[in-house]
Parts: sequence; structure tokens; C-alpha cells
Amino acid sequence: MTDTRPARTSGTTTSTRAYRDGELIAHGFPLAEVSDHLEKEGCVVWVDFTDPSESDLTELEDELGLHELAVEDALQDGQRPKIDRYDGHLFTALYDVDFDRESGVLSTSEVKAFVTSRALVTIHHPEFDVSRLERTYDDNRDLSAHGVTYLLWGLLDCVVDRHFDATDALDDEIEGIADDLFDPRPRTLDVQKRSFALRKSLVQLRRVSSPMREVLNTLLRRDLKEVDADMQPYFQDVYDHVLRVSEQNDSLRDLVSTILDTNLNLQSNRMNLIMKKVTSWAAIIAVPTAITGFYGQNVPYPGFQSPVGFVTSCVLIVAIGGLLWWQFKRRDWL
Amino acid sequence: MTDTRPARTSGTTTSTRAYRDGELIAHGFPLAEVSDHLEKEGCVVWVDFTDPSESDLTELEDELGLHELAVEDALQDGQRPKIDRYDGHLFTALYDVDFDRESGVLSTSEVKAFVTSRALVTIHHPEFDVSRLERTYDDNRDLSAHGVTYLLWGLLDCVVDRHFDATDALDDEIEGIADDLFDPRPRTLDVQKRSFALRKSLVQLRRVSSPMREVLNTLLRRDLKEVDADMQPYFQDVYDHVLRVSEQNDSLRDLVSTILDTNLNLQSNRMNLIMKKVTSWAAIIAVPTAITGFYGQNVPYPGFQSPVGFVTSCVLIVAIGGLLWWQFKRRDWL
Amino acid sequence: MTDTRPARTSGTTTSTRAYRDGELIAHGFPLAEVSDHLEKEGCVVWVDFTDPSESDLTELEDELGLHELAVEDALQDGQRPKIDRYDGHLFTALYDVDFDRESGVLSTSEVKAFVTSRALVTIHHPEFDVSRLERTYDDNRDLSAHGVTYLLWGLLDCVVDRHFDATDALDDEIEGIADDLFDPRPRTLDVQKRSFALRKSLVQLRRVSSPMREVLNTLLRRDLKEVDADMQPYFQDVYDHVLRVSEQNDSLRDLVSTILDTNLNLQSNRMNLIMKKVTSWAAIIAVPTAITGFYGQNVPYPGFQSPVGFVTSCVLIVAIGGLLWWQFKRRDWL
Amino acid sequence: MTDTRPARTSGTTTSTRAYRDGELIAHGFPLAEVSDHLEKEGCVVWVDFTDPSESDLTELEDELGLHELAVEDALQDGQRPKIDRYDGHLFTALYDVDFDRESGVLSTSEVKAFVTSRALVTIHHPEFDVSRLERTYDDNRDLSAHGVTYLLWGLLDCVVDRHFDATDALDDEIEGIADDLFDPRPRTLDVQKRSFALRKSLVQLRRVSSPMREVLNTLLRRDLKEVDADMQPYFQDVYDHVLRVSEQNDSLRDLVSTILDTNLNLQSNRMNLIMKKVTSWAAIIAVPTAITGFYGQNVPYPGFQSPVGFVTSCVLIVAIGGLLWWQFKRRDWL
Amino acid sequence: MTDTRPARTSGTTTSTRAYRDGELIAHGFPLAEVSDHLEKEGCVVWVDFTDPSESDLTELEDELGLHELAVEDALQDGQRPKIDRYDGHLFTALYDVDFDRESGVLSTSEVKAFVTSRALVTIHHPEFDVSRLERTYDDNRDLSAHGVTYLLWGLLDCVVDRHFDATDALDDEIEGIADDLFDPRPRTLDVQKRSFALRKSLVQLRRVSSPMREVLNTLLRRDLKEVDADMQPYFQDVYDHVLRVSEQNDSLRDLVSTILDTNLNLQSNRMNLIMKKVTSWAAIIAVPTAITGFYGQNVPYPGFQSPVGFVTSCVLIVAIGGLLWWQFKRRDWL
Repeated sequence: MTDTRPARTSGTTTSTRAYRDGELIAHGFPLAEVSDHLEKEGCVVWVDFTDPSESDLTELEDELGLHELAVEDALQDGQRPKIDRYDGHLFTALYDVDFDRESGVLSTSEVKAFVTSRALVTIHHPEFDVSRLERTYDDNRDLSAHGVTYLLWGLLDCVVDRHFDATDALDDEIEGIADDLFDPRPRTLDVQKRSFALRKSLVQLRRVSSPMREVLNTLLRRDLKEVDADMQPYFQDVYDHVLRVSEQNDSLRDLVSTILDTNLNLQSNRMNLIMKKVTSWAAIIAVPTAITGFYGQNVPYPGFQSPVGFVTSCVLIVAIGGLLWWQFKRRDWL
Repeated sequence: MTDTRPARTSGTTTSTRAYRDGELIAHGFPLAEVSDHLEKEGCVVWVDFTDPSESDLTELEDELGLHELAVEDALQDGQRPKIDRYDGHLFTALYDVDFDRESGVLSTSEVKAFVTSRALVTIHHPEFDVSRLERTYDDNRDLSAHGVTYLLWGLLDCVVDRHFDATDALDDEIEGIADDLFDPRPRTLDVQKRSFALRKSLVQLRRVSSPMREVLNTLLRRDLKEVDADMQPYFQDVYDHVLRVSEQNDSLRDLVSTILDTNLNLQSNRMNLIMKKVTSWAAIIAVPTAITGFYGQNVPYPGFQSPVGFVTSCVLIVAIGGLLWWQFKRRDWL
Repeated sequence: MTDTRPARTSGTTTSTRAYRDGELIAHGFPLAEVSDHLEKEGCVVWVDFTDPSESDLTELEDELGLHELAVEDALQDGQRPKIDRYDGHLFTALYDVDFDRESGVLSTSEVKAFVTSRALVTIHHPEFDVSRLERTYDDNRDLSAHGVTYLLWGLLDCVVDRHFDATDALDDEIEGIADDLFDPRPRTLDVQKRSFALRKSLVQLRRVSSPMREVLNTLLRRDLKEVDADMQPYFQDVYDHVLRVSEQNDSLRDLVSTILDTNLNLQSNRMNLIMKKVTSWAAIIAVPTAITGFYGQNVPYPGFQSPVGFVTSCVLIVAIGGLLWWQFKRRDWL
Repeated sequence: MTDTRPARTSGTTTSTRAYRDGELIAHGFPLAEVSDHLEKEGCVVWVDFTDPSESDLTELEDELGLHELAVEDALQDGQRPKIDRYDGHLFTALYDVDFDRESGVLSTSEVKAFVTSRALVTIHHPEFDVSRLERTYDDNRDLSAHGVTYLLWGLLDCVVDRHFDATDALDDEIEGIADDLFDPRPRTLDVQKRSFALRKSLVQLRRVSSPMREVLNTLLRRDLKEVDADMQPYFQDVYDHVLRVSEQNDSLRDLVSTILDTNLNLQSNRMNLIMKKVTSWAAIIAVPTAITGFYGQNVPYPGFQSPVGFVTSCVLIVAIGGLLWWQFKRRDWL
Repeated sequence: MTDTRPARTSGTTTSTRAYRDGELIAHGFPLAEVSDHLEKEGCVVWVDFTDPSESDLTELEDELGLHELAVEDALQDGQRPKIDRYDGHLFTALYDVDFDRESGVLSTSEVKAFVTSRALVTIHHPEFDVSRLERTYDDNRDLSAHGVTYLLWGLLDCVVDRHFDATDALDDEIEGIADDLFDPRPRTLDVQKRSFALRKSLVQLRRVSSPMREVLNTLLRRDLKEVDADMQPYFQDVYDHVLRVSEQNDSLRDLVSTILDTNLNLQSNRMNLIMKKVTSWAAIIAVPTAITGFYGQNVPYPGFQSPVGFVTSCVLIVAIGGLLWWQFKRRDWL
């Protein structure tokens, strides 16, 4: 597929492909020829835009009969993941996600698509690696007989797989944090920072992945004329992936909460251990201070200015100090 | 639209507008002329009241056949966001919201409306900037052929956009708090105050925005004769915004909880660090005290009143103190 | 209405009223005359019992054809708020609530009612101020043409308004607690006690108010022959109030949780500040102790028993103590 | 009813009763006579087993046409509370509960029953006090005309009443804990232990009581031929009790959580108070130590070995100590 | 059953069995003979694969008409527990679970199956002990007349029983942790580690067991032609087990949360006790230090260098120290 070179138009990248009977019959043709291909019997067209301007879409808007509201949504960022039904076409907004394991940051990027009875038009940012989608199409060429349904399925499959990968990466991350949690020399601040970032990523991922259930549900309701009923098991398969992402997200959120609670408990435990140590050593150290204080008085105590006093003092310090040390050791306070 | 001057009646502000075929054919006319405009073929009327008194509405109540319960609700504050169906008209209560980034305070202001088959009557407080609504109408004049449905849509779109803006502002605020959380010199009290205010704002925003789902759902059920079915995609668009506000609210609440939990963890961590430092320094400082106490005794210890004693004392202080310091440093307690 | 004197029977208070065409045609008549009034065309009767005994109800049980299970429920406390449908009549159990701002205690009191096609029988404790209900009836006399539906609506409206008032009072209380929370000299124990009492009140209020949704839903289902369909908007209005109480309750519970969490954070923060102060002062105070300990040794240190020693000692104490004080001040530990 | 002696068979206790037209016509007859009674017109039979063995049930299995799966469930412990419909009979599994206020332990005991068109067979452990059930039947003899439906209702009513009683006992327990919580001399460990036990009891109670909703719902669906429709209000009454148990359980769980959170806050508060006291006294006590340390130096400070020094030392100790004490008292630290 | 030896093919283990009229008529026959057995009247076949390769399944794929998507799912790990309906067969993915009480680790292992009208094909890893399944089939041979439905039921019953066992083991584990929680000499770190592991196991178990509800629900909907309606009570029985696992999981999660919260409370309590002890002893120990400091001054205090001073010093130390000790003891601080 490396020969499918994108044609540059007005600062954005546009790529075109036409399929017939499961075969790629043309690619890289200009937008003006889209309608020529659509006229051919059994031919479907995929047009891919990277960061299109308003004018880029105007041409297609008329040719494919797209609703102005859908075109507006396609150009404006910040859509909810959804699938909208318009007269003569569907419009879907999806989110590609990428979890960078190094920085622990989850980034999202909108992918939108128009689905008419014979054409798929995808619109995305450069962050979305369109070659993945191409690979999905090439790997499943046996399904291409299902026409535009095959193209739509490929898009959803490709995007949901990305959600899946991100969830797995987050799962690994959480395993790592949990391991560090019980480390004998914990880097608590690090655990905190990573937990917080993780929670944020999970919240973000849920925001873009949980509405996918609705999207797939709409496609599985079997009443959309744009969708070929024979591909239902394939959409069901994507739906299963969406559900797994969603369930795993819930599980991970649960675990992050437990990590935070456990960490608080662990810190409280460490605090108690430290406090016990402090108390014990403070008591042990207070002994010589009190005794030497006694023998430092300018009053004629027994042994005042005599070797007897010195010996008594030393014996007392060692004996009482040692006794305390032994007591604390026995109670596991030291 | 700057020439649409409001006409003052009895302490409240009233503004009137009449549209036909997508054109503003009259504005600023007195309430008495409303029925004249309603008699014209294809003409719709928008009447806007700022803080009306009971008598202001009585006139319209008869003219438009409004239900007394609806009029009561319109005059009384504290309604739930809702849309009520009466014989011959709809009544809706909405909330305009405004988040002041400076003070961190979210303020809300009720906006109510009657929707008859040919007229929209809006009632609000001066806090609601009606010029935003005018701008929405002017920007979408191509939809005005849908008559009163267009007016109702404009109102909802305008109000929900405000919810959207507030949510975005709260999102920024939470980002700021999260950044301060891991600041090496944290202003914890500040984080607490802002988190608490944020949580309050989120609770408040949810209270006025979450019932909007029901409102839009009612309008999307396609069985209201007041609503033009052709505008369904536009209401669907508003509904998508409502859903996004609601989902983002949930996400933000989740994050605020996580911030509170994380902060508690961080403080507990700082406490542990401080305690470890305290213990370590206390131990190091206790050494000279104990040693000089020993050499301060009035008993003939080795080196009593001789330079040997002085040297031994100094050596012991430095040696034991240094040893402890090195041990604590090695264990990262200092 | 002050002339509607209750007639005392067997230790309980009974009050009777008969309406026709929106007018109060009789009141204070004995129970035996209830059936006389019911025979009159278009006449409805309201009988009100305060703490009735079993025998008080037996008379009516036969006259109005009440189900024995309903009568049992009416006499026994501890019912769930509900509306039960029996052959020929409805039975409803509600809770009047009262929040005492002084003591912070929420008290509840059961109110029960039978609704036949022509009569309303209310049963309550002396805590329920029946004059509120009378006022509701008098204020809405224009609705009395709806017969017994009007009486039932009045009862629900009156009780739900009480829930509403209690919720508002709890809202004020929570505002007060939140204000005290960030007070520079917090009375933490007080905040705790009030938060706990508030949470208990919220739990209690929810227990009596949340089943009201079901009650109203039953009445709005439009299939009860006892209920006049024309009054649906009025029941819808009560339903809106029930929803608001329920939503506000959720919000307040959320805020109480946040207050508890925030308070824990604030206390942890105060603890950290105290610990930092303790550490700092302990370090500063340890300096003179260590130095004077040194100069208190009975060994010939430099300056032993000479003014040079005194000056050095003083200089050291002031210099090191001052240095520490300045360092801690700079780091905002003091 | 004291003369209804159970007949012992093979180590288990079996009791039999036959009713006709609301009257107990026979009891204590052997199992072999059950079918004789069933043949009589309008006669229903109740057979009660305590800890039956497999063989005890085999006889009835054939006679009453019980499904083998139901018999298996009846003999095996650990069923979910449920009602199963088999051809020709119902099978229900319920849990009797008992909260021991002394030990704070909630114990549960399974009660199972077969319901055919003419017979009720109950199976339970000795922990279940069957005399309660007998009392329920005797107290409601007026309902016995409803045949086996009356027997089934009595069983459910009796069991749900036990859930109710346990909930009330748990409610009292929680009141007691809440009172101890703010006790000026709190027994915190005790509060913890009781809270934890209470939470466990609530979890356990919910496990056996919440599926009762389903059980009652099944019975209220009016499509079971074994159930007499005229008794619906009585099952509705039991259902109301089930709902109350469930709602109260939720409320109590909420309160236990609040108690735990509040307790943590209170302990943190007490910790802060202690820390403030420690700091204050430490500062006050450090003063004489520092001053006497100064006057203990072997250097010619002003007042060295002269009464002036003694007076100055004493004045300094009292003055600075007193000043600190007064400052701390003023700030409410002592 | 020990004579049912598996036949090895290409590195994986394959086992075959054929039943007719409840009897095992053949086993251990090669895959090629499967179709021979399927042709016999009333004969059902069970084929069991351990870790099959793609080619192992290809043969059956054609013979039994399996959908390629199902075969793909069967070969690829990481499926959601589910039951999919394809033309002519069902495909189900389940998880066997095993909780190792020693290590506290819950391990899961996928089990998948194809169900055609006459054959069951199971695919699993070596971790799944297939002899359990064989035992289930042998113990319930009386049901084998239900053909493939019996085989499917046996598989579900066997897997759900494993979920049940794991839940019981987790229940025991939680009991153990709760007991250790209030141990007078708690091993807090251990409690933490076990709680955390337990929570992780619960999350994991829920992930594989909660979708089983859906699976059973699908089978209970009575519209699958592959499933014999007469076995509904048996599937209902499995469903009850699934519900119990799910409810117990919820209860256990609740208890783990309570354990974490209680532990935090307990640690905070212990911290307070330690702090009180530290304070008390610090105060008691400060007394001799202050007094001996006083008598160590080089100023002529009363009793300076005289036995009177010594006696006074000793009396003061014992008296004040004793008084403090008695005070602290009385307030239960020591």
C-alpha cells in the first residue's frame, strides 16, 4: 500500500481510493473524479482528509448531499463520540487515543466520517495514523464485497482497537504502581504523581470510549439502510471490544481508588512505626541526660566529687538505658 | 441588531420582535400589537420580559391562552429546569449560568419561556444577557422559516452553550488546581479552598444542567405539535451538547475527588518526611547534650578538670554526631 | 378559618368539613352526619382525625367501605410513604417534616389519608399543623370544583412544601458549616458535630421524601378513577417539587461528603504546619542547651572560667539561634 | 396451640396440620395421611420439617409431585432467597435472621418451602422458631379461607417481620455508636469494633433481604395460578415491609460510612489538640532548661557565684515561662 | 472415567466422546470419525481441545459449519465472557478461575465452546482441569437425553461452580483479614498487602463472572433453537449461582472498603495513643532535667553546696514526677 500517495490540496492532505468487488481499482485520483467512480456499478469510494478547510468539504457536500449541520460538526473540534442519521447519509465522530508510556500522558485526536450508500469520507488530524486504517482494509479485503459497510466497520474496528491498546497500556501502568506501593523503600511522591496521572487518563479514556457503546448499538439495531445486515457479526465483534474497554476501565478506576486508599494506610502505618521509634529513642536518650544532670548538681549528693559517684553514674546510665532498649526491642518498637 | 431598543413598561423591560419568512418585519412594538402580528399569515412573534410583574403577564395570559399554573411558575423563582405541556402551549424553565474565573463563583439565573404555535415569550432577570440570544437568532436566520420552533431552538442552544462554557471554565480551573497539587512548595490551604469551591460549582451546575436531558428528550420525542419535525437534527445537536456537559461534569467530579484523596496522601507523605527529619535532627542534637552532661558531672570522671577530658568530649561529640548524620543521610532521612 | 373549631371525641380531635361547588357548606358536624352530606349531589367531605383510636375509625370503615388492611396501616405507625389502591378507595401514607434550626434536629410525623370518590379522611399526630392544610385549601378554593381530587392534591402539596422547606433549611445549614470550615480559627469539633447531624437529617429526609416520587407517579398515570384528569398539571407541579427535593438532597449529601473530606485535609494541613513549627522551635531551643552544656563541662575548654568563655558562649547562642530562626522564617516554617 | 406436639421421625422433627374453611381440623398426623387430607374438599395441609434427611422428603416428593431440582435445593444449604416456578408447584428459599444485641452478631438461618395448590411444606433448621409462624397463622385465621395462599403469605410475613426487627435493632445499635462518637472521653477502639461488626451485619442482612423484592414481585405479578388474587393487598403489605427494610439498610450503610469518616476526622482533631499541647508544654519546659543551662556554665557570667545571679535566674524562669503560658492560653493551645 | 485417554494430535491434546440415549457409546476416536457419529440417530458428540492450533480447528470448521469469526475468537485469547449466535451454531467464551489460598492470587483461564445442534466443541488451556467437566457429565447422566443442551449445561455448571468456589475462598480470606484487624498486636503491613491483593482478585473475578449473567439470560430467553426448553430449570439453577457469585462479590468489595477505612481509623487511634504516651513521658522526664538543671547552676541558690539542697532536689524530683505520673495515669494517658 506504500504507493498510495496522498494528493496535496490547499494545505490539507487528501487521499482517494475506489474499490470494486473487493479490489482497489483506483487511488490518488482528484476529488472531481469521485462522482465518476460512484457512477460505476458496485464501486465504493473512500476519501480521506487530513485537517481539511471549509472549502475542501464544500465540493463534496453538494456531490454527496451532506447535511450542513454534519459538515459543521466535521469541521469543528470537541464533538461527543456519536453517530448521527441524516437523510441519505450517516455522520460519525470518534476519538483515536494514544497512551505514551514514557510520559504517562493519554492524548486523543478526533476522527470523523460521513457514510453515504456508496462512499466513506474520513476527516482527521495528522496525529491519526491513517496507515493503520489502510492496513485494516487490506487485511480484511475478503469483506470488501460488503461495500461501504466494510469501510465503516474497518474504521470502527481500527479506532476501537486503539482504545483497547490504550487500556492495556494503562493496565500495565497500574501493575507497575501497585508493585512500587509495597516496595520496602517506597517512592511515595512518585506513586502519587503516577496514580493521579493514571486516574486522569482513565477519566479521559472513558469520556471518549464509553459513548462508543451507543454508536455500536445504533449500528446493531439493524434498521439503518446504509449498513449491510450480513456484517452484523463483525459489528458485534467490535461491540464486544467496546464493552471490554469499558469494563476494564471500571476495574482500573476501582484499583486506582484502592491504591490511593492503601497508600494512605501504608503511610499512616509508616508514620506509626516512625513515631514508635522516636518515642523509644527519646526515652533511651533522656536517661543519661537526667542522670548526668543529677550528678551535675552543686549539692553534696552521695558520691559528690568522688570516684564512687562516677561509677554509680556510669552504671545507672548503662543499666537503665540498656533495660529500656531491651524492653522496646522486645515489644518490637525499635 | 443594535437598533432594537427595549420599550420600558412599569419598571420592567419588554422587547418585542416579529419575523416573517426569515425576516425581522417589526420590533419594539407595544404588547397590545402582538395579536395584530399574530394574525398575519406566517408571522411569528418573540416577546422578551426582564423581571416582569404579575400585571405585565396578565395581558398576554389571555391573549395567548396561557395556563395560570404556567404563569405562576414564570413569576416565581426556584423552578426545576423542565418543559411542561399545557393545552395550546409549552412552558419551559431553564438556567443561564456564569462562572467567574476571578472569584471562582458559579452564578445561575432563571430563564423561562412560553411557546405557543406562533409566539415565544421569554422571561428572565437582568443577569441574563439577552443580546446573546439575539445574536443566536441573527446568526441562524436561515432557520427562521421554521417559525416558533426556530425561536425555541435558539433559546435552548444559547442557554446550553452557556452551560458548555461554564464546564470548560471549570475544566481549566481543575487543571490549575492539579498543577498546584504537585508543586514542590504547595499552597495547600489554597488548593483546599479552590477544590471545595469547585466541587460546589460542579454540584450547582449539575443541578441546573442535568434536567436539560429530559427537556431535550421531550422535544425529540416528535409528538409535540408545537415543534417542527424538520428541526429535529438541530435539537439533536443541542442534546449532544447537553450530554457532553453532563459527562464532563461527571469526569470533573471524579477528578475533584481524586484531588482531595491525592492531597491527603501528599500531606501524609510530607508529614512523614518532616517526622523523619525531626527524629534525625533530634537524635543528632541529643548527642552533645548527653556528652556535655556527662562531662558536667561533679564526679572525678576520666579527664575531670584536665585537657584530656576536653579533647575526649570534643572528639566524642563530633564523631558520634557525624556518624549519626552520615547514617541518616544514607537512609535518605535528612 | 379560625371559626372551624374541632369537635372532641373520645380523647382524639376530629374535625369535619363539607364543600359543594367550591364552597364550604358545613363544618364541625359530627361523624354520624358524614353520610348525609355524601348523599347530597356534588358535595365532598373532609374528615380530619388527630391521634384516633381504633374505635374512632370503625364507624367510618363501614360507612366509606374502607379495607381492613388500610385501616390497620392507618392506626399503626412506621409505614413507608406510599399510595395503595383498594376497591373503592385509595390509602396514602405521607410524612410531615420539620427541621429545627436551633437544635439541628429533623423531626418527622406521619400523615395518612383515605381517598374515596367523595370523601377525604386524614389521620395524623398533633405535631402536624393541620391549619397549614386548611390554609392550602382556602388559598386554592378555585380548584375545589375538582372535588376530592382537589382535597388530595391540597394534602400532597402541603406535605411536599414542608419537605421543600426542610431542604432549604438544610441548605442554609450546610452553607453555614462550609463558611466555618475555612475560618482561620476553626471550631473543628463543632463542624464535625453539625456535619454529622446534617448527614443524619439528610438520610432521614430522603427516607420520607424519595418514595414520594412513586406516590406522585401513581397519581400521574391517569388510570385512577378517584383522580380527576383535569388536575394533572397540578399534580405535575407537586411532582416537580418532589424531584427538586430529591435532587437537592443528593447535592447536599455530596457536599457533606466533600466537607468531611475537606475537613480531614484541612486538619492534616494544620497538623503539618504545627509539626513544622514544633521542629523549628525545637531546633532553635536546642542550640543554647547544647552550647551551655558545653560550657558547663568540668574540663579546661578554651575560655574555661574566664570572661572570654562567657562572651564566646553568648555570641554562639545568639548567632546560631538567629541563623536558624532566619532560615526557618525564609522557608516559611515559622 | 400448645397442644400441637411435633411427631419425631428419624432424628428430624416433623409437624403436620390440616385446615378447612379457616379451621384447624387435624394436626400431628403422620406423613402417610397427608394425601388423605388433600383429598378432602377445601382442605389444605401444612407440613413442617426441622432438618429433614433426604429420605424424609422422598415420600412427599412423589405424593406432591415435587421437581427433583427443588428437592435438591431444599436439602442443600446456601441458596439465594428466591421463588422458583415448577410444573405444579412453587419452591421458595428464604432466610430467617436474628440480631443478638449483646454480641452484636447477626445470624441467619435458611427456611425453604414448597407450595402446591393444596399444601405448604416448610423445611428449616432448629434455629428458626416455628412457633412464630404458628402464631402468625393463628392471629390471621380470618384469612385462612384463601387456602394455601394464606399459608404462603403467613410464611413470608413472618420471615420479613424478622428482617424488620433485625433492621430496627441495627438502627438502635447505630444510634448508640453515634452517641459514643462525640463522647468527651471516647472509647474509639470500641466504636471501631462495633462499627465494623455493624457494617458486616448490614452487608449480611442485605444479602438475604434484598432478593426478597424479587420474590414478592413474582408473587404480585398476578400470573401464578398457585396464588389467590384476593390476597394481593396482603402480599403488597409484605412488599412494603421488604422495601422499608431495604431502604433502611441503605440509610444505615450510609450512616456507618459517615461514622467512619467522622471518627477519622475526630481523631485527627484530637491529634491536633494533643500536638498543640505538646508543643506548648515543650516550649514552656524548655525555658528553665535553657536558663539553668546558662547559669550552669563554668564561665564568669554576670552574677556568677553571687546571689544576684540566683535572683536573675529565678526571675527569668518565672517571667519567660509565665509569658509563654499566657500566650498559649490566650490562643487556646493549652 | 480413567480409561478415556486423550489422543495426541500435532502438539495439542484432543479428546472425543459420543453419547446416545444417555450412554457413552464411543470415546477417543479420531476427529475424522466425528461426522460418522453425527450421522447416527440421537447421537451427540463432545470434542475437547487443549491449546489447539489453527489447523486443528479448520477440519471441524467445515464439518460443523462454524463461522470464521467464531473460530478466530476461539483461537485468540482475551475474549469477554459471552455467548454469540451464529447461523447454525452458538459460540461461548467463559473463564475458569482458581484462587490459590497460599499465595492469595486469583488466576483465570479461558474456556471456549462451539454448540451445534448435535455437537459440543470445547477449547481450553491445560490449566483448565477437564476431568471436572467429565465428572459433571458422569454425575448427571440422567440428563443426557437432552442431547447437546445437556453438554452445554454441564459446561456452564462446571465453570460457574468454579466461580462459586473462588468466591467462597475469598470470603474466608476476608474473614481472616478482619480477624487480624483487631488483633491487639496487629501486623498492619500484612493486612494492607492482603487487602490489596484481595481487592484485585475481586475486581478480576467480577470481570469474568459478571458477564455470565448476560450469557445465562440469553440461554433463558427460550428462543434459541439449540437449547432444549425442558432444561430451563437447570439453566435457571446455574443462573441462581451466577447471581449469588455476583451479590457476594459486591458484599465482599464493600467489606474490603470497610476494612481499609477501619484500618485507617485504627492506625489513627494507635497514633493518638502513642502521642499521648510520648507527651506524658516527655513531661515526666522533663521534670528531673529542669530540677537538676536548677541545682547545677553556679549561683548561691538555697541549699547551694549543702545537704539541704540535695534533699530538696530529690524530694522535688520524686514529688513532681510522681504527681504528673498519677495525673496522666488517672486520665488514661499512660
